[in-house]
Amino acid sequence: MNEKLPNIAIIGLGLIGSSIALAAKRAGAAGNIVAFDNSAEVRSEAKQIGLPVALVDDIKIAVLDADIVFLAVPVGVMAGVVQQIISHLKFGAILTDTGSTKRSVIDDINPLVTGNIFFVPGHPLAGTEFSGPSAGFSSLFKNHYWLLISENKTNTATSVMTNFCEKLGAMVEIMDADYHDKILAITSHLPHLIAFTIVGTASDFEHDLKNDVIRFSASGFRDFTRIAASDPTMWRDVFLNNDEAVLEMLQRFIDDLAYVQNAIKKRQGNKLFNLFERTGEIRRSIVDIGQATD
Amino acid sequence: MNEKLPNIAIIGLGLIGSSIALAAKRAGAAGNIVAFDNSAEVRSEAKQIGLPVALVDDIKIAVLDADIVFLAVPVGVMAGVVQQIISHLKFGAILTDTGSTKRSVIDDINPLVTGNIFFVPGHPLAGTEFSGPSAGFSSLFKNHYWLLISENKTNTATSVMTNFCEKLGAMVEIMDADYHDKILAITSHLPHLIAFTIVGTASDFEHDLKNDVIRFSASGFRDFTRIAASDPTMWRDVFLNNDEAVLEMLQRFIDDLAYVQNAIKKRQGNKLFNLFERTGEIRRSIVDIGQATD
Repeated sequence: MNEKLPNIAIIGLGLIGSSIALAAKRAGAAGNIVAFDNSAEVRSEAKQIGLPVALVDDIKIAVLDADIVFLAVPVGVMAGVVQQIISHLKFGAILTDTGSTKRSVIDDINPLVTGNIFFVPGHPLAGTEFSGPSAGFSSLFKNHYWLLISENKTNTATSVMTNFCEKLGAMVEIMDADYHDKILAITSHLPHLIAFTIVGTASDFEHDLKNDVIRFSASGFRDFTRIAASDPTMWRDVFLNNDEAVLEMLQRFIDDLAYVQNAIKKRQGNKLFNLFERTGEIRRSIVDIGQATD
Repeated sequence: MNEKLPNIAIIGLGLIGSSIALAAKRAGAAGNIVAFDNSAEVRSEAKQIGLPVALVDDIKIAVLDADIVFLAVPVGVMAGVVQQIISHLKFGAILTDTGSTKRSVIDDINPLVTGNIFFVPGHPLAGTEFSGPSAGFSSLFKNHYWLLISENKTNTATSVMTNFCEKLGAMVEIMDADYHDKILAITSHLPHLIAFTIVGTASDFEHDLKNDVIRFSASGFRDFTRIAASDPTMWRDVFLNNDEAVLEMLQRFIDDLAYVQNAIKKRQGNKLFNLFERTGEIRRSIVDIGQATD
């Protein structure tokens, strides 16, 4: 049986957008792949590395023929992009996004979506600290979760998206937007906030000390610097758009930090030891379910 | 010219002690390698994996013939170990340690060291989240810094230690104890404290949420769980013995965290963006000096 492949449009050719193009090409998951980025520099970089897409410099033209439109832009600009394209989408097209926050994106986009378009919010849990089209690679999504937000997992648009993401190698999970934002606040947003902050703390040191921190960064700190090298625009938007869940988790973390601070001040070794034993168990759970790839 | 190889004794067969044995054997850096661990279970594990050492079950016998004695035990028990062995060391033997804090270890050990013994405090900046003899491997120190504390880098004992550590593949740096403790507080101790804390925060969640945090831990949080799986006893001792520098860095971090928290609350995107740009520069510096191996 010949399966009809969806034509796709990718708006935004950063790490995620360019990886979708490469993964779709490699998997033979798409018909035409048309792409747009609002930066001429990024479009030129995409062209130079031979990204397997038809590059256009008019966003409206990018979406004209698309069965699935991927919005792979910072969450702060999603609504603006949708406003530009919505009236040019095909009847029955699927609109999806790859943003790291979901409630804010849904609240921004839902009012703009007309009745003949299916909006399926999404979030691939994949990434590196690198940005731009040359950071993309075709196996980025392999064995990573791709979360889709849907109240009805059996509707056609959700099935099409599930099928497509699975072809890119991802494991699809359907969940609720608020639950997504809560999970991501603790697994991704707060860790990034902490990493940005502690690397910022170190960058305030006087010159010699800072240089030695950089030189001797091997144990622990280096992991934080990798996380803290992620794209500034994307992350600013994440914190402003998942502020409620992030601030809640941050407050819990600050309270727990005060507990540890006190235990050190009062030389309560047992309290520290018990905490450190408990945290090892979480790591073992992650190893057990095969999610500890590094 | 035939170089006389030093006989070495290793007290403590955790990740570091067993790696010293394996690295010394592989490099042909030592004559006899005699080892002791106060846990019968650890000794039995070391025997079972065929660690290339002469295992003894009396700590005094371990050090009798040693030219260099490595103390690879948690910093909280260093002094107790030295009390047991000091009168059994050879005349002119070098005593060194691998502890992650240096001022406390020096203050604990110096009063116990007799005039005919050379104490060269040390700290290899190498490790993984795994513990015990079976976690050791011969290349652990390769291209990693091994810090030695000495007021006089040209004295014989420091030269012997430098030469030995370099044979294991390490890059030796001589520094002052208090400066060491300050650098390590920010590059290693505070990152570990933060990782233990945030993983602890997550482990307090109700069952379903905790399970989903574990499942979707891919981006950011997983790095923290790896760090937070490190040996509880070792780390409890680190925080209790480098409390001053750790508490100072922790306070700076808490202040910086409040700044970020406020920026999110007040929706000051520029403040966030500027911080996130600044932290990327530190990463680039680490990449530039070739210390970004992951």
